[in-house]
Amino acid sequence: MTFKNSDPVTVSFAGLEMEGIYISASNENAVVKLKSGYNICVPESAVTLREGAEALAKPAAVPLEQNEKLPLLSIISTGGTIASTVDYRTGAVSSKFTAEDILRSIPELGDIARYRTLQPFNILSENMNPAMWQELARTIYNEILAGSKGIIVTHGTDTMLYSAAAVSFMLDTTVPVIFVGAQRSADRPSSDNAVNAICSAQAGVSELGEVVVCMHSTSNDTSCSLHRATRVRKNHTSRRDAFQSIGRDAVGTVSYPDGKVVLADDAVKRGENSLVLKAELEPACGLLTYYPGMNPAVLDAFKGYKGLVIAGTGLGHTGTDCIEKIADLVASGTTVVMTSQCMAGSVCDRVYETGRYLLDAGVIEAGNMLPEVALVKLMWVLANADPKDVKRLMQTNLKGELDVDIRGEN
Amino acid sequence: MTFKNSDPVTVSFAGLEMEGIYISASNENAVVKLKSGYNICVPESAVTLREGAEALAKPAAVPLEQNEKLPLLSIISTGGTIASTVDYRTGAVSSKFTAEDILRSIPELGDIARYRTLQPFNILSENMNPAMWQELARTIYNEILAGSKGIIVTHGTDTMLYSAAAVSFMLDTTVPVIFVGAQRSADRPSSDNAVNAICSAQAGVSELGEVVVCMHSTSNDTSCSLHRATRVRKNHTSRRDAFQSIGRDAVGTVSYPDGKVVLADDAVKRGENSLVLKAELEPACGLLTYYPGMNPAVLDAFKGYKGLVIAGTGLGHTGTDCIEKIADLVASGTTVVMTSQCMAGSVCDRVYETGRYLLDAGVIEAGNMLPEVALVKLMWVLANADPKDVKRLMQTNLKGELDVDIRGEN
Repeated sequence: MTFKNSDPVTVSFAGLEMEGIYISASNENAVVKLKSGYNICVPESAVTLREGAEALAKPAAVPLEQNEKLPLLSIISTGGTIASTVDYRTGAVSSKFTAEDILRSIPELGDIARYRTLQPFNILSENMNPAMWQELARTIYNEILAGSKGIIVTHGTDTMLYSAAAVSFMLDTTVPVIFVGAQRSADRPSSDNAVNAICSAQAGVSELGEVVVCMHSTSNDTSCSLHRATRVRKNHTSRRDAFQSIGRDAVGTVSYPDGKVVLADDAVKRGENSLVLKAELEPACGLLTYYPGMNPAVLDAFKGYKGLVIAGTGLGHTGTDCIEKIADLVASGTTVVMTSQCMAGSVCDRVYETGRYLLDAGVIEAGNMLPEVALVKLMWVLANADPKDVKRLMQTNLKGELDVDIRGEN
Repeated sequence: MTFKNSDPVTVSFAGLEMEGIYISASNENAVVKLKSGYNICVPESAVTLREGAEALAKPAAVPLEQNEKLPLLSIISTGGTIASTVDYRTGAVSSKFTAEDILRSIPELGDIARYRTLQPFNILSENMNPAMWQELARTIYNEILAGSKGIIVTHGTDTMLYSAAAVSFMLDTTVPVIFVGAQRSADRPSSDNAVNAICSAQAGVSELGEVVVCMHSTSNDTSCSLHRATRVRKNHTSRRDAFQSIGRDAVGTVSYPDGKVVLADDAVKRGENSLVLKAELEPACGLLTYYPGMNPAVLDAFKGYKGLVIAGTGLGHTGTDCIEKIADLVASGTTVVMTSQCMAGSVCDRVYETGRYLLDAGVIEAGNMLPEVALVKLMWVLANADPKDVKRLMQTNLKGELDVDIRGEN
């Protein structure tokens, strides 16, 4: 038999009986949302209609109340799982909620601050791009100018690290700028969206004064970590504690439910910097991960680019047969920056022969910058610096992206 | 003044006085190898000659003795730091030692086994390629056929994970195949090469029966971990414990100095499999890391390739604007496989809209396979399987590369 979307059904599969809501067909299979919140994909024959049962009711909207005595935070919603629900048409999770919806669904936020909400765009984060990062930085800047005491950016987790790093380079902030997401959508019992959102609000009213990512510290609900935007990575596809600081500890933690914020000694503090926006970016930059046997012709894909970040092997290497093409790129005006696919640790192209040849070809060593961060930094430096200063700035710590400035033959 | 290579010198820099050996000039600077084993790059003016001092003497060669009562191991040297010394001409580390030299420099190896040594090639590992992986697999196979009780492959750490995984797919082995490297060369006091080599020999005479990587477990010299070849990654550019198992524990550990080998219950044991070599590889395969704002035209670099692994964001996504090009690649005969740049966790393209579109475009989900491992597996599957079986095999666990076989619409 065939089912309609939202039909209450029973799934009999692998010796188990489970109740759920029919979502859609996928080839020969049925997709059913179980009461647990998880979707299951089973043969149509395993599904039967629950006659007389009712579809899941949506919770009623609660009016939004604001306490005018609390500090003002801006919630800038860009989309992603934290703002998502299940689309019962396709069975897939999509991002549809507005920032107001987030407040209605997490009433605890009302005890921490009052909120102004904006939604410059609403996308799944894999569709983020440099133009949107600029729009986001401008939106944040304007909110701070308008008196906001802290900024919360809700963002899909897929590319949150790129966006947070990009904003970090474009904006010197006076107030906390907290990127927050969720690994699991609000309809799932293991959702992290409420705890992450509450902790991000606590961080937003804290004494922090830099751009961070706020996500679960562990798989427990007891705290969130505040990761410096230029030193964070999503290291797991689905775990709630997927985000980890690389090469340093988090710059802060927020306990849940007590909301206590503890900042590292070297965390940038509220008001420590002046508010400056330099939102230009050079989008013609690429990122290439080297792999053994890579045909050097792959590098031709980046001809005409202003910048290219290579995630090389180990201390920052490519095959020797790539070096001529890299030298050609540099000669034609592409700034080529070397990072490591190892993720942690510094590149150093002065140890092995291959590295020395790469330096001779004009490659710029990027220290312990993450490849993703080097990419957005390169976009920012190329758009904001004099050409003669590009190398020096790429090798100078601007926003915590480098442990130490890189010395050498500058 | 100017110095000659190997001149004994004193460096006065940053308030410190350090003795060392002059190596070379680098632009306006001098490169000096300090007594600590580390190189330093300082202005020429900081360097003075130590009159009357002698250059560092090389240790005398010790004759190699073999105990014929011990089991026979084959040491296959491919180059890399474990086989490297400093080239005093360039000041750079290069790989020049033969396998015999390794035995002479680590006499403890003689108490564990007797050895046959081979050097099919001698390269820095960033120059590895699929043809060399095939040569390496054939060499290992022939050594096992000839009676070797275990194989040690000394390999540069940069691309060791790719080579170990490639051999893992090409060869069903009856004996341990141990890839071993060093993060720091033998002339440095912190070198890990002796402990790693000794532990690899202990693993080589153990009851293991699969391909593993043997490297320091921690930054101490107390044990090495045996990482399954298809689940290991070099996660730091320079730490001695840079290699980590991803998504599972190591399949074994070797204590140092007692040499005790402990294997996990699910480690493949000696003799459990039959010896089979299927050394064909399809080299026309690429790996591409997606980044936000990537121009879809980058995908054109892989036109005509037999296979392409994409390291997508999160659960396995690219920007929506890439999907048409990906569909074109699939339609033109390129097998496109989706992994995640998150490193750990499984891809799942059935959760979000973008993933569903990618599946419609013909992309194959690669579960929790590491992107690097998916690349070499794809090379192997395309060369050894009927086209109709490629997807099924990519989604079937062959050598521990997948936690579970991927179900779904196969």
